[in-house]
Amino acid sequence: MLVKTHAAATAAECDDVRERIEAIGARVRGVNANGRTVLICAGDTAALRRLRLESMSGVESVFDIPQPYKLAARNGSADTIVRIPGPTPTQIGGRTFTMIAGPCAVENLTMLRTTATAVGAAGANLLRGGAFKPRTSPYAFQGLGEAGLEMLGQVRAETGLPVVTEVMDARQIEAMLPYVDVFQVGARNMQNYTLLAELGRIRRPVLLKRSAAATIEELLLAAEHILAPGNGDVILCERGVRARETKTRNTLDIAAVPVLKRETHLPVIVDPSHAAGRSDLVLPLSLAALAAGADGIMVEVHPHPAEALSDGDQSLTPSEFRALTAAIAALAPLLGREVPAVLEPVRAA
Amino acid sequence: MLVKTHAAATAAECDDVRERIEAIGARVRGVNANGRTVLICAGDTAALRRLRLESMSGVESVFDIPQPYKLAARNGSADTIVRIPGPTPTQIGGRTFTMIAGPCAVENLTMLRTTATAVGAAGANLLRGGAFKPRTSPYAFQGLGEAGLEMLGQVRAETGLPVVTEVMDARQIEAMLPYVDVFQVGARNMQNYTLLAELGRIRRPVLLKRSAAATIEELLLAAEHILAPGNGDVILCERGVRARETKTRNTLDIAAVPVLKRETHLPVIVDPSHAAGRSDLVLPLSLAALAAGADGIMVEVHPHPAEALSDGDQSLTPSEFRALTAAIAALAPLLGREVPAVLEPVRAA
Amino acid sequence: MLVKTHAAATAAECDDVRERIEAIGARVRGVNANGRTVLICAGDTAALRRLRLESMSGVESVFDIPQPYKLAARNGSADTIVRIPGPTPTQIGGRTFTMIAGPCAVENLTMLRTTATAVGAAGANLLRGGAFKPRTSPYAFQGLGEAGLEMLGQVRAETGLPVVTEVMDARQIEAMLPYVDVFQVGARNMQNYTLLAELGRIRRPVLLKRSAAATIEELLLAAEHILAPGNGDVILCERGVRARETKTRNTLDIAAVPVLKRETHLPVIVDPSHAAGRSDLVLPLSLAALAAGADGIMVEVHPHPAEALSDGDQSLTPSEFRALTAAIAALAPLLGREVPAVLEPVRAA
Amino acid sequence: MLVKTHAAATAAECDDVRERIEAIGARVRGVNANGRTVLICAGDTAALRRLRLESMSGVESVFDIPQPYKLAARNGSADTIVRIPGPTPTQIGGRTFTMIAGPCAVENLTMLRTTATAVGAAGANLLRGGAFKPRTSPYAFQGLGEAGLEMLGQVRAETGLPVVTEVMDARQIEAMLPYVDVFQVGARNMQNYTLLAELGRIRRPVLLKRSAAATIEELLLAAEHILAPGNGDVILCERGVRARETKTRNTLDIAAVPVLKRETHLPVIVDPSHAAGRSDLVLPLSLAALAAGADGIMVEVHPHPAEALSDGDQSLTPSEFRALTAAIAALAPLLGREVPAVLEPVRAA
Repeated sequence: MLVKTHAAATAAECDDVRERIEAIGARVRGVNANGRTVLICAGDTAALRRLRLESMSGVESVFDIPQPYKLAARNGSADTIVRIPGPTPTQIGGRTFTMIAGPCAVENLTMLRTTATAVGAAGANLLRGGAFKPRTSPYAFQGLGEAGLEMLGQVRAETGLPVVTEVMDARQIEAMLPYVDVFQVGARNMQNYTLLAELGRIRRPVLLKRSAAATIEELLLAAEHILAPGNGDVILCERGVRARETKTRNTLDIAAVPVLKRETHLPVIVDPSHAAGRSDLVLPLSLAALAAGADGIMVEVHPHPAEALSDGDQSLTPSEFRALTAAIAALAPLLGREVPAVLEPVRAA
Repeated sequence: MLVKTHAAATAAECDDVRERIEAIGARVRGVNANGRTVLICAGDTAALRRLRLESMSGVESVFDIPQPYKLAARNGSADTIVRIPGPTPTQIGGRTFTMIAGPCAVENLTMLRTTATAVGAAGANLLRGGAFKPRTSPYAFQGLGEAGLEMLGQVRAETGLPVVTEVMDARQIEAMLPYVDVFQVGARNMQNYTLLAELGRIRRPVLLKRSAAATIEELLLAAEHILAPGNGDVILCERGVRARETKTRNTLDIAAVPVLKRETHLPVIVDPSHAAGRSDLVLPLSLAALAAGADGIMVEVHPHPAEALSDGDQSLTPSEFRALTAAIAALAPLLGREVPAVLEPVRAA
Repeated sequence: MLVKTHAAATAAECDDVRERIEAIGARVRGVNANGRTVLICAGDTAALRRLRLESMSGVESVFDIPQPYKLAARNGSADTIVRIPGPTPTQIGGRTFTMIAGPCAVENLTMLRTTATAVGAAGANLLRGGAFKPRTSPYAFQGLGEAGLEMLGQVRAETGLPVVTEVMDARQIEAMLPYVDVFQVGARNMQNYTLLAELGRIRRPVLLKRSAAATIEELLLAAEHILAPGNGDVILCERGVRARETKTRNTLDIAAVPVLKRETHLPVIVDPSHAAGRSDLVLPLSLAALAAGADGIMVEVHPHPAEALSDGDQSLTPSEFRALTAAIAALAPLLGREVPAVLEPVRAA
Repeated sequence: MLVKTHAAATAAECDDVRERIEAIGARVRGVNANGRTVLICAGDTAALRRLRLESMSGVESVFDIPQPYKLAARNGSADTIVRIPGPTPTQIGGRTFTMIAGPCAVENLTMLRTTATAVGAAGANLLRGGAFKPRTSPYAFQGLGEAGLEMLGQVRAETGLPVVTEVMDARQIEAMLPYVDVFQVGARNMQNYTLLAELGRIRRPVLLKRSAAATIEELLLAAEHILAPGNGDVILCERGVRARETKTRNTLDIAAVPVLKRETHLPVIVDPSHAAGRSDLVLPLSLAALAAGADGIMVEVHPHPAEALSDGDQSLTPSEFRALTAAIAALAPLLGREVPAVLEPVRAA
């Protein structure tokens, strides 16, 4: 059950409501939403209804939310649009179709700058690139760490592209804040709940990737772990699930896009690069994502894929990426979508 | 290895080649392709090469085919276009985007006629409808059988729409021939090899659905069971695989479309109705299929889905189907596709 | 709903009951069970209850069966023991732990005789061997067909071992009857419903393998397709499902054994050879099957696995099979199981 | 490649080897194993071989390790036996079959004490119980946290049972050290590599659960993330993978047990409670685990399962657990396994 208080409700009124709920053994958690307190109650629904909380002072309205993801659930609400202030303000959600592109990992300043400049000129709206890389083998390249963050910060200043990069551990958040516009949670950490809770306590958008083993409900509940502590800026990302097929790295669950758009108000993007694991499938899967209703894509681009330190097989060249953005720009209007204008690079004077 | 003979090769020349191959213990199977014999050899490749078959009389050329699906493999050949003579000639493959629509099962003549007229007017190119229905429970409605075939034949004559319907057993083929333009093999029979072999011996197109458990390679090998006896008119259909998600009936493997278009020259269509199991996802998944490069879709339509004897949850109403064909017609040209013109019904005088 | 008639009920009484059921639009199917008629009714349960069929003449009792597999459901009934008359009577189910062994395919008379003699001496109770082989590739060895059946018949007469062999098509049943004690339905044909229905009309045990994609409920419903027409002698076989692991051919669903023993009265065996696809795992998986409550195992044995025409990687040598039967004989009594005595071969005089 | 140095090799000698490896661009990481340094090299294998490191001073031997899990790979080495000093020394691995039992979560001191006393008396060797609980919903009971740890410490002192409990975040390790004999990494954190790396730097055994989506190779690579920094005491735990079946919570991959015993020297246990999600399957699955070669089981036990705050459906009662340990004690000797003697409780004076 959700209890929405009046904007003018006092702290004492909120406390009264909370106490009445706890008195019957239910659990309650307060969330700040647009300046008012929303109380999420979990417990015996019938008993909660008998409390008639809607008649208490300070309460505006009371809702039953049948889904276990109380805050993520659509329930008739409008699309959440996640605003990314960044060096150049942009957004994910609404009528915009957002394109995030960049290398799998930050390898050095030159390649990052080359890639960022190329993808920005081709129409990318945000730059992706990993500084901390979760790798299946402990002997593989693990990313440049803080040096990589600094390179992201420098290229962000030069190109004006906001930066999306992966956080693997709650202890990294503090150091990342100066460089990062969107924190990415990788598929392998989708159920790392202590990390999600910490991200729920900051004010910075979070891009949450679906685990290859997770159901749609589990993805929405993972999002709820970020929403519940108070961070409402969550972007969901479908990147393929595990099935039996071996000609692709994962099986892109394209139906998850329209299902998620019905289940939640949060924006939904697709990562065709990790889903396919093959660069030749990125174009058709990106167009399929647009056609199925996604709010954007996240694509790996590398100036020389054959020399990439990770994920070379699935990286586009800059010219392949230009062909992709052109195809999307042509189709998007027919699907009711706008593609943001190409940025003028904000080079340091 | 494939041995292509000259168009003018004599039977004796072909037999000589065949004998030389068998003499080294390899297995050989002859296929008639456009009036010439192609010999498919399976065995020790190095030994086969040492036979230098390309120098034998009657042999035009010799190819190594690394894939196990020798005839289905793309290997640089052009798209196969399956021609459907039907009451009104149509085709699947090439630049055409073909729409197959109709009820899950033929329930009675009136509903079949109503549905066929509506989907034909909306732009469907073929009529689907099951007379023999494989059902998970033996106590569920199993279809009208031969009575259903006759209804299909009558509505086919009235509307001019060619008919696609499912065959479950080799013993049904003979009785179906007068009524059926395309034989459908359902997902549960994809590896019913005796049925596939019989369909390989007739001259009628076959629409082969991928089993929910099959890999792409297994689908192509199932097609090979039809191609090898001599029937080259096979249409492949992706209709969802088994994964863990429960908000959809199956998980549509959208990447299978571009993968198949690279692996084989056969046309590839998508069945969004069975993949999703929900009518509200049929539109976005159909557009995704078009965007990903499919040659068509097969969609369930019922005049009153709530009263359908089977698959009501996933059936579109006629007006939803019209909205779908309109959306496809708008997008198709941008993706290099043509949508065939709407048929004038060929009503009996 | 199940309506059990009295043993002494007349045909007219049964017809009256049937008519009353059909009068309310429900569907009814009669099954002969131990000399009495059981009517299975599918339809509106509340309406069926209001008919008060239990008060009609000729009716003994009426049950609600909540499961969709009306005849396969356990519902408190005792274990079905499938009797195999064969040359030497044996059984599957009850306290017996039955071992079925033999080559994947019948390759020639000598190898079949050698294998059968060896597995019989080691304690196998039935001989397996394929004459009709469903193969993923149309170019692979498809079995010896009728010649293979004759070899099975000859070795059956010589060794006294009853024969289990696969049927792929309803048209093969007639020719197989003289040679076959148990008809096997392979995993790929588990949902070939016309084949299942034909096997439901004969009086010969059927060993039904679970499809790699099927849920336990779908397996039980496939069994129901054999039970409903009147053949009660169905043996279920777990042989691995599709998951992501690649170090084994399939993923043996060991929990399916105790789940099936609770859900159904039919006997349940395990095929560790196809599940693992590796001979080194056959021993531990066979012991696990015994420990989990299976009624037997079916194992591939070949005198020279490296030379096998199919499935060599997963075939045991005769001496490995002896080690397996010895391990089972040692453990079985502790698990409440009896291992049948070794047969004296019934060589032709 | 692995380079094993002599026990008497000097630091300078080790540095020389390391430098020669790095000079060709390979990556090297040193591990301390039984007092000597082992260098793990990743890079161009042919170039590494040409270095002839085996002739350098201080080097004892050089191995090629084809597997990506260099330290976890079996490669002929003997079983690792993980010693657990605890209040009463015990071990996992070797000929011992170890039983870990206890509640899903620590709910209060009384229930923990009752459960621990009961499972200890029935033959459990270690006590499990969660203080930090990863829960799919943020609104579910998340465990008692540090208060739960203190209860575990008190009951550990009273009963003498070593404690296994889950760590969710690297920041918890320090506070857990005084109370925890074995750190458990849950399935959802199997690829939380920063956590694994921290656990690799302490000297305390780690029980690593396989993610429901992970292949066996990914599990072994996750173990490698703990082994590489120097902690060799890793216990692997199979607890079910994701497949399509819904009658069980997960699909226990029983074949993973013998596969892992061949691939690695690390001990392997099975968690039948989480695999099944149903208490009635815990006994048959535990016996199957023993029969398949597992080194132990981890089982959930609760004094009143119906009142459990989590996982009640899959918890055994104490008397069901006694029946389980009795069945295991009877079977174990026939499978070459010893069951440790029941502990005398070490109650505080």
